[in-house]
Order: sequence, then C-alpha cells, then structure tokens
Amino acid sequence: MFGSDNQAPAHPRVLEAMLAANDGRCGSYGDDPWTIRALELLYEIFETRDLDAYFVGTGGAANGLALSALCPPWAAILAHPHAHVIEDEGNGPEFFTGGCRLVALDSAGLLVQPEDIEAAATRHSPDFVHGLQPRAVTLTNLSESGQAYSPEHMRAISSVCAKQGWALHVDGARFANATAATGASASDLSWRAGVGALSFGLTKNGAVSAEILILFGKARTGAAAYLRKRAGQLFSKHRYLAAQAVAMLEDGLWLNLAGHANKMARDLAARFERAGACLAVPVVGNEVFVRLDASKVAALQTAGIRFYPWPTLGGDTYRFVASWQTSADDVEVAAKALL
Amino acid sequence: MFGSDNQAPAHPRVLEAMLAANDGRCGSYGDDPWTIRALELLYEIFETRDLDAYFVGTGGAANGLALSALCPPWAAILAHPHAHVIEDEGNGPEFFTGGCRLVALDSAGLLVQPEDIEAAATRHSPDFVHGLQPRAVTLTNLSESGQAYSPEHMRAISSVCAKQGWALHVDGARFANATAATGASASDLSWRAGVGALSFGLTKNGAVSAEILILFGKARTGAAAYLRKRAGQLFSKHRYLAAQAVAMLEDGLWLNLAGHANKMARDLAARFERAGACLAVPVVGNEVFVRLDASKVAALQTAGIRFYPWPTLGGDTYRFVASWQTSADDVEVAAKALL
Amino acid sequence: MFGSDNQAPAHPRVLEAMLAANDGRCGSYGDDPWTIRALELLYEIFETRDLDAYFVGTGGAANGLALSALCPPWAAILAHPHAHVIEDEGNGPEFFTGGCRLVALDSAGLLVQPEDIEAAATRHSPDFVHGLQPRAVTLTNLSESGQAYSPEHMRAISSVCAKQGWALHVDGARFANATAATGASASDLSWRAGVGALSFGLTKNGAVSAEILILFGKARTGAAAYLRKRAGQLFSKHRYLAAQAVAMLEDGLWLNLAGHANKMARDLAARFERAGACLAVPVVGNEVFVRLDASKVAALQTAGIRFYPWPTLGGDTYRFVASWQTSADDVEVAAKALL
Amino acid sequence: MFGSDNQAPAHPRVLEAMLAANDGRCGSYGDDPWTIRALELLYEIFETRDLDAYFVGTGGAANGLALSALCPPWAAILAHPHAHVIEDEGNGPEFFTGGCRLVALDSAGLLVQPEDIEAAATRHSPDFVHGLQPRAVTLTNLSESGQAYSPEHMRAISSVCAKQGWALHVDGARFANATAATGASASDLSWRAGVGALSFGLTKNGAVSAEILILFGKARTGAAAYLRKRAGQLFSKHRYLAAQAVAMLEDGLWLNLAGHANKMARDLAARFERAGACLAVPVVGNEVFVRLDASKVAALQTAGIRFYPWPTLGGDTYRFVASWQTSADDVEVAAKALL
Repeated sequence: MFGSDNQAPAHPRVLEAMLAANDGRCGSYGDDPWTIRALELLYEIFETRDLDAYFVGTGGAANGLALSALCPPWAAILAHPHAHVIEDEGNGPEFFTGGCRLVALDSAGLLVQPEDIEAAATRHSPDFVHGLQPRAVTLTNLSESGQAYSPEHMRAISSVCAKQGWALHVDGARFANATAATGASASDLSWRAGVGALSFGLTKNGAVSAEILILFGKARTGAAAYLRKRAGQLFSKHRYLAAQAVAMLEDGLWLNLAGHANKMARDLAARFERAGACLAVPVVGNEVFVRLDASKVAALQTAGIRFYPWPTLGGDTYRFVASWQTSADDVEVAAKALL
Repeated sequence: MFGSDNQAPAHPRVLEAMLAANDGRCGSYGDDPWTIRALELLYEIFETRDLDAYFVGTGGAANGLALSALCPPWAAILAHPHAHVIEDEGNGPEFFTGGCRLVALDSAGLLVQPEDIEAAATRHSPDFVHGLQPRAVTLTNLSESGQAYSPEHMRAISSVCAKQGWALHVDGARFANATAATGASASDLSWRAGVGALSFGLTKNGAVSAEILILFGKARTGAAAYLRKRAGQLFSKHRYLAAQAVAMLEDGLWLNLAGHANKMARDLAARFERAGACLAVPVVGNEVFVRLDASKVAALQTAGIRFYPWPTLGGDTYRFVASWQTSADDVEVAAKALL
Repeated sequence: MFGSDNQAPAHPRVLEAMLAANDGRCGSYGDDPWTIRALELLYEIFETRDLDAYFVGTGGAANGLALSALCPPWAAILAHPHAHVIEDEGNGPEFFTGGCRLVALDSAGLLVQPEDIEAAATRHSPDFVHGLQPRAVTLTNLSESGQAYSPEHMRAISSVCAKQGWALHVDGARFANATAATGASASDLSWRAGVGALSFGLTKNGAVSAEILILFGKARTGAAAYLRKRAGQLFSKHRYLAAQAVAMLEDGLWLNLAGHANKMARDLAARFERAGACLAVPVVGNEVFVRLDASKVAALQTAGIRFYPWPTLGGDTYRFVASWQTSADDVEVAAKALL
Repeated sequence: MFGSDNQAPAHPRVLEAMLAANDGRCGSYGDDPWTIRALELLYEIFETRDLDAYFVGTGGAANGLALSALCPPWAAILAHPHAHVIEDEGNGPEFFTGGCRLVALDSAGLLVQPEDIEAAATRHSPDFVHGLQPRAVTLTNLSESGQAYSPEHMRAISSVCAKQGWALHVDGARFANATAATGASASDLSWRAGVGALSFGLTKNGAVSAEILILFGKARTGAAAYLRKRAGQLFSKHRYLAAQAVAMLEDGLWLNLAGHANKMARDLAARFERAGACLAVPVVGNEVFVRLDASKVAALQTAGIRFYPWPTLGGDTYRFVASWQTSADDVEVAAKALL
C-alpha cells in the first residue's frame, strides 16, 4: 500500500459496469451505446459539447497522441523539468510526435510559472530555423510533486501561451485529484483556462485501464482519430473502455474517489507530522512526500508498507500515494510503524 | 451477429478472472502473479521457455511492435496483397517501424506461397541501396480470407525466408482458429515452423482486450520492452491483461472457444449451401464467405443479421464471422432467413 | 554515355558560376545575393511570386520534403506503380513524412490518368479510419518511362484531386525535359495546372547538385523551412547551391540544355529505328526505350556504350538517356554499333 | 569577416578539383575514381582500413545519420548542454534516429568530463523501462566553446562509455581545427580513442559542401548505406563531393588550412587582449570568445566586422571565428577597431 495508485485494484463499480456490458453483441470500435453514454457524461462534466473524446488504454498513449495532435514534428514542447513526459515515458512523446523535442523549463519551484514560459519565449525565436521551435506547453495536474494548478494559475499560463500561439496540454493522470483538491470545476481546469488537450486519467483513480484524450475547441481537427488508429490505440471491443468511463463518471464517482484518496493522504501526512516526520512539500492531492531517515524507512518497510524514494525532492524524501482503496486502517498501520 | 468476432462480448470466464484479480494491491507494469501465471501457460502451450511475451491492448499494436522488433526502418515487409497490415491498420506498421514499406506479394491465391517469396527475393537486391530491402515476411493465420496455413506450408515459407535472412512474423488475430482448424500444435504453427514473432490474439476469441506479442529464439533481443513502453502499450494495471490471458489459456479454453466458433461457421456454411448459396472460398476457420444476390442480402438484413460485403473475394461476396458466442440458434436464424 | 543523365558532368557555366561565387565572405544559409537572384529567376520563369523555394541537395530530399509538407503522417500518397518515389528512394518518402503509405494506382498505361485517381477515390473513404487515407497524388514529369504530362492532362488530374481535397505534387527530376518536350510554360505545367509542390530538378539537366522544392499558393505554409532544416538539407554555404541555380535558370540555359538532350534522344531513336530496332514507347523527352536482342546488346556494350535494362517496359527493353552533353558523335557511335 | 567559418568561400583548390572532375562521364552514386581516391586518403589519414565513409552534404545530416547508425529509437543520447546537436539542428537528431532523446549532461565546464558520464550512468538504469536509456555519448571537437578534447581526455571518456556499453560519436564540424590544435593524429582523436562514429567536417574548413560520416570498427554494420539513401543524402553526381574531399585531404591541405585559421584566431585574441579586452575562454582552435562592452561592439560593427553575441558564455561575450581565408590584414582591421 502507498506504492502507487496504480497498484490498487479497480473500483467494484467499474468491474460491475464491465460485467453489465458483457452481454450480447454490439458494434466495435466505438459504435456502441456505452461510448455514446460516456460522451454525454463528458459533455456534462466539462459543460460543453465543443470537445472530441478519444478513449485509449494508457496515459502514455493519451499524452503522446495529445502532443502529436497539437504539434508538428519539428516543434519543441515545454514542460516542468520533472514532468512525467520528460522522465518516465521512454521516448514516447518523441515517438508519437515523430520527433518533437521535450524541453525542460527553468522552473525552480514545484509548478510551472507563467514567467518560466515567458522566459522561454524570449529565448527561442520562431524565425530562427536552427533553434528550438516551441509550439506547446504541457502541464501535469496534479503535478509530479503532488501540487495542483488552480484555474487562475492555469489561465495565467495559457494567456502567455496564447500570446505566443502555443497550445496548452494537461497531463491529467491525476486530474480527478486536482479537481477535488482545488474544488474547481473540470471546465475551469481545462478549456475555460485555455487548455486545448487534456489527458483525462481514470486508471489511477479506480478504472482497470481507461484514459481519455479530450480535445477542446480549435484543437478538434479530426487528426486524432487517424493518429489513434495508426498507434494501435483504437480498441475493437470499445464498449469495455466506455463502460469503465461511464462507471467512473456517473454520479460523480470519479470525484468522490479522488476526494477520498486526497483525504487519506492528508490524514497520513498529519499522522506523519505528529510522529515527527517532516513533509517535503505540502499535501494537496493524494500524494505525500515526506523526509525520512534510514531507521524510519526500515520501520515502515518492516511493517510491510510499500513506498518509493523520490530523490528529485531530496535524497531523504519518500513518496506515499493514497488511492480510492486506501482505508483509515492503512493510514493507521503506516502511522504506527513510524512511532 | 456474424458481423465480426470482435462484436461479441467477452467470455464469462474472462470477466470472472478479472473480477477475481480485482482484490488487493499488487505491483504494476507486470510485477504481479497473474503475469507470471500467464507466462507459464504460454511456456506450456508453446512447449518452450525460449520466448518473450509482451501483453498489449490491440492487435494493431502487437503487429506494429512485432515488425519494429524484426526490421530496421529502411526495410520492406512482404505480405499478401489483402493482408490486414496492408489494408486495415491506418499506416500503423509504418508508424511503429519508423517507415518500413509494406509490399504486396504477387500472391494470386488466398494464401502466400513459398514461390511468391522466392519471386520477391529475385526481384530485390540487398546490394541495390535505391530499391526495396525486404527483411521480413508477415503471414496472417487464419488469413484474411479465412484460410489456414498448415505447419508444412509455414515451414516451406520460412525455409525460403531463412535462405534470404528474412524474419517471419505471423499476425495471429485468429491464431486460435487456425490452431483449432489445422489440429496442429501452437508450437508447430509458430517457432517450430521458423516463426520469429507471433501476434497471438485473444480478443476476437473471447477476451475483453488482450493480445500477446511473442518473440521466439533469436528474435528475443530485448528491444521490444522499450518499443512497447514508448508506444504507450505497457499497461500499469497489468494484472487485468494477464488475468484475461490466464482465463483464456487455462484448461484449453482458447482452443475450445475457437473450435466452437469454427464449428458454427461450418454449420452456417452447410446451411447456406443447402439453401443454394455458393461459398466463395472453403470454410476452414470461423469465417464464411458466401456469394449472395441482392434479394438474399436483403432477406438476411431484414432478419437482423449483421454481416459485411467482402469485395476482395468478389463483388457479390459477403463475410459471416462466427464467435465463441455464436449458437446453433444463431445459425438457424441466419439459415432460415436465406430460405 | 547514355547510362543516365546523372553520369554526365555539370555544364561549364554551372562551374563558372560557382567559381565566380567563390569570392569573399557572405551570409550563410541563404542570406546571400545569389539566393536572391535565383528566387527572382524562379518568379520570372513561373510567372508568379506566390511561391516559396527551398534549395536542397538531392531529388530524393526534394520529393520527401514536398510530400511531408503536403501530407500528415497517416496519409496515403497515390502514384504510378513505377513511380520513382515507390521504387527507387529506399523508403525515403516514408522517412520524410513520418510514415505515409505510398500506394500504386491502377495505371495500366505509361501515365497516370484522371480515371485512375477517380477509381482510387471510390475505393477509399475518409471516414473509414482503418483504411488508407489518400491526401496527395504525385506525378513524375517526365515520367519514369520518358513520357510527358501536358498541361491539359495535368489540369484534368488536378481537377479530380481538388474534388477530393487532395494535394498534387510533381516529381520534376526531368521537369526541364518535360517543359521542352511539351512546349508548355513552366507555370502551365505547375501551379496553373493545380500543382501544389514541384520538385524542380537541375542536377540531371546540368548542375552539380541542385534541386529546388517549390511550393505554390496555399501549400506555402512555412513548415518546409523547418522540415528542411531538421532533415539536414539546409546548406551552410548556400551561395553555391544558388549560384548553380542562377547559372541554369539565366538566359534559358535550363530549357536549352533540356531541348538539346531531347533532340539527341530523338536522333538516337531515329537511328535505332532505321537500324531495325523497335521502340518500346514513343520518345518524348531525353529517354529512349528500345527493344534489343542479345546480340545487339552485346554489340553496343562492345562499343563502350553504357545503358541499362528496363524490365518494367519488357524483358528485352533497354533505356538510353541523353544529356546536355550528348553529342551527335555519341549518337553516331551508338547507332553504328547497332548496324 | 569573423561571423563564421561557413561565411568564407571555398578554398581555390577545392573548386579547381571540382572543375578538374567536370570532365566526361562517370558512374553515379559513388561509382567513380574520385570516391575511390578519397577513401584511400581517409585510410591514410586515419591509419586504418577498418572504416566506412559516407559522404553527405551537411553536418546536420552527418550527425543525424551517425546517431541513427549507433542508437535504437528508444535510446537517449548524452551531450554537453550547449552541444550543437541539442541547440542548433532543429530536431534533426530526433528525426534521423526516429525519436531518440537528446539529454544534456551536467557538464558545468566547457568540455564533457568522464565524471559527467559516470554520473549519468548512475542516474539511469537499463532495466527501468520507463526511464531514459542512454546508448551513446556525443562530443563536439572542437567544442561549441572552441575548446579541444585531447586524446587522453577522449580515452577517459570512451572508457566510461565502454563500461556502460555506450557508443561514442564525435561531431567534428571543426575536427581539423581540433587536430591542428592538439597536434594529435586523426586516429588518436577518433578510433584509437574509442570513437565509433565521426562526423568529419570539411565545409567550414574550406570545402563547398562536403561532410564525411566515418564509422569505425564494430560500428560498421552497413546500415548507414540504407539510412543515407532514405534520407536523400546519397548524391547522384557523387564525384563532386569526392573531388572536394580529395582536394582537402591531399597534401595535408585540411590540416594546413585549420592550422592557419587557428593561428589567426590566436593572433586576433592576442591583439584583443593587448587592446584591453578580456577573453571569456582560452583560444585553442579557430574561435575567439571575448568580453566586450557596448562601445567596443559598436566600434567593431562600424568597422564592418561581422561577429555574433554568444550568451551561453556570458551576456557580454562575443564570438569571432577565423577561417582558412582570414588574413593578417583582417586581424589588423579588427584589432584597430578595438583601439
């Protein structure tokens, strides 16, 4: 437990929905009632019908397709130095985009600031054909360090992007946690804040494997349908992807699960602090980054707690991730191990 | 019904297995007991441990990754003119391989013949840097026209390939149907016949979405692990992919389901013939290609039967696909509509 | 002699121009007076300023860049079955476009006919995401069999393309010969006939190595500047590329040289015919395709004549190419050898 | 003058050689005596026949092809943060390699140190499929800051690389200047120091446009021939590329020209220092990086001197490049402007 939210199982309602969908024949490749229903739920949640949704199997695929839909292959894509697309996708963005360059912004803090992007805009000239050609910024919300971009923060960033003509993408592997943490609406955290493409992650939050690439407004060029197909991300028995999404999106389950995970993380952090441990960064979503000495690490491991070192936040920092399944008991066990 | 085997639901045991796997935490990305179990089953079925298995979400991904593991980007890949990789994957093979050329063999018949490959070998010279550079042959077994390659046929082909130093790939979206139809063993239809890479499809045969890229012998270079990751085909909650595979592979379910589908196809064909319809090609696996005039097409459509025209086998030819779920009643309904 | 026009040296005026340019410093990467002058000459010759010109080193680069400027990577590109881009560029188009599919049209004759394209349009549906997605047609003028597309022929083709929203590219490695042969203007054979991108070849016609990718009208998106740079085709000492172009384009040298080569080919063909040899196809430009028996082949080889078999026009067919340097004496030598 | 060595013309002997080659017909694509002669000269200069040489048109192409010959597309390539391949090639390396990631080493100094590579080796794990997978290191010699790697330095680096199984590439756009500066032999600065691939630049040093990709020892896989062809870098009238190389390589012209340029740079630096200007870094090759205040910049510009700001070495730093053509008079003019 606490290793990662992708080590948790799926929420029971997700599998129930898959089971319920497992009845009779239906069209393949998205020609089914579950896909239609999932789309309607997205329209509701994002408060607009001016969106295209592409269901895919992994977050890496959603991010890669998003960037390839936004950028020509000679573009540079700006991101936080510790962005998942930079550090953890095995050249996936380069592959999907046909050769874009991922460029780390000079972001000293945990989140990308509008000034970081302005600085990059100063550094790169669209007329200088030899140099980098930024065409998009990608943010991770929740960030890799568990922090959230607020709607205001996002708007400030997208306003800099708009001035440059750059697109804005959000890697939302934990978009639900960010939404729950900020209390903002999904629309305020996406298209209303100038986001062109959102990788809306459901897997970590409780699905089996279901990620949705959402393109808003002028990013809806239709190209993504072909890009998804050629990437082997158009699923034949599409109903099961869609049924997962329906289960997660109906009745606000996605937000409730994320809210629960966020609360468990806050509780864990509080208990850790009470036990004298020092948080590396504030707890905003479902991730706790805490500084631990070797004896405490050993005590937690002895107690069977699974968690990982997180050296980008300091050599003695460890990450604990709460999921929809994390219970007060889990928190208790971890907290006790620290005493 | 009969539209495609991917319009059928998953077999109940597949969803039961996913449900059973949906309990507690486990490692992600394949570090789980279901993946280990699935691998053991593959060792048994293919009668060797000299294989690497990569679970992915779609057949297009399995094929693309297989070809990219076998070929450099400047290679040509030889295939039957109506191969799925040529006609139905939206430039997927080009994408995954970084630019390989798919080249249609001069195969007049329903299956690729060794002579077709020999002819290609004569036509292309490895020393002529301007021209096509074949490096692999890909076969579909069952073929796109529902025919099966026997072990002898495959060996004859791979022997030509071996002389040229070309790799052999099998697109096995319906490998189970081919295995059931030929009565051959999985090993005789793959590595024992010189196959380096097999896209072993489980989805059409009864899974939700689970395809396995299997590399044998000297094709096991390790590159596929990185290729899969960058392609967004390494699933975080890998246990559900593996659990599907376990359910399908245990107790011979995969072969039983394919055998059933094949039998339903034979029955349907027999009924069609009795009703005076003419088969376009022999029924070997789970697909029936039959010549129908407009009135019969209309009658079947009126009866709610779903099926597709198959112009590559003639303008009046239609394809009917049986699945694990096809029942004697389904056959009855279709047959009656034709009377 | 007669092996290929790229076995001829450069025209003396080309090297004189390079020598003249070899004086003093100037800006690199196209910031030089020769590039400006070459551009002005292109405006004159093509009778429009609504064009962008990109100088590159080889015809393969010009073609690859042209197609990548016109097509997304999931597109199919339609061409004559024996098109150079299909047969002789070692997967170059796939590389430059990031994975486009080259698709051979059903062109039974020596030139692509409008009906061939209409037939392809019927076969492929833009809404069918699994199938091929044609987005461009590419013609070779002179064709690989030495034939010329007239302005009328080109307009008929581009009109079909326009209806489909497909772009039209011309591989003009021997565009000068086509222009000289048809007597048409460069503009009538390009933008006035709906051509979006022209690979305007100067190398075969007398340059050292200078090819120009010209984009017309709405194909002028600016992307080609970045595509050329990343492909390593933006030359630092650009003045020498430009100086070659100036030499070739000034005073109609390009047309005169092509006209001479065309005439030499006609003379050679006449002499061959008089000697009893049979032309495989009419001689239109600077290429002669002639049927020869083994004894005549041997006689020509003994006489030191260099030429190649051309099996796509028949097993006993051989190609002879005249160049700007071919002389009446050369024709005489070849003709005599045949007697 | 002093803007860049690629703003200088070609050396007269280069054009003379092209002119001399401009006589009569010869085979294309490298089947000519000049190519054979150039290859012999490379064997001599590099003191080995265990090399393959590929002539191309630009340094960007040589680098891109080199890296694509050394690395699979999922690899990371380590380089100095200010490496040309990172900053100035418009995503060329990503394009040629099919998606490799360029990763800046933590090199605080002007040259990559063995420890920088060791540190990277510690950071990245070949077994961690999500993370970066370094497979090659690329050095620029002369470096972008005009410094030279000595044979000892290179051997120390390649020894770290060898331990990791990583290949070593040298971007030698100014390899001649590095060779002249260090007094080392070409072999000591390449294969004897563990270099697998060298981009041997002749253009900046006096050619029109001629760069040679040299692969040594086990890097000679033959793949580069196909990679070059598909990239549109196999020149048809290859004799002119080869003739340039012959002219440059014969009688040590390449070293003499580089030695002269290096001396001019030293003289300029000495004069600058005497005039009170401060060098930003030592002058080793043909580049002078000097700190100048605004009034001195203006004075130099008024005198018609061309040069560029070089902010990576400090906001007040400017680069002056000497070429084979730089004369004592040029130095005098620049020096006087500074007084």
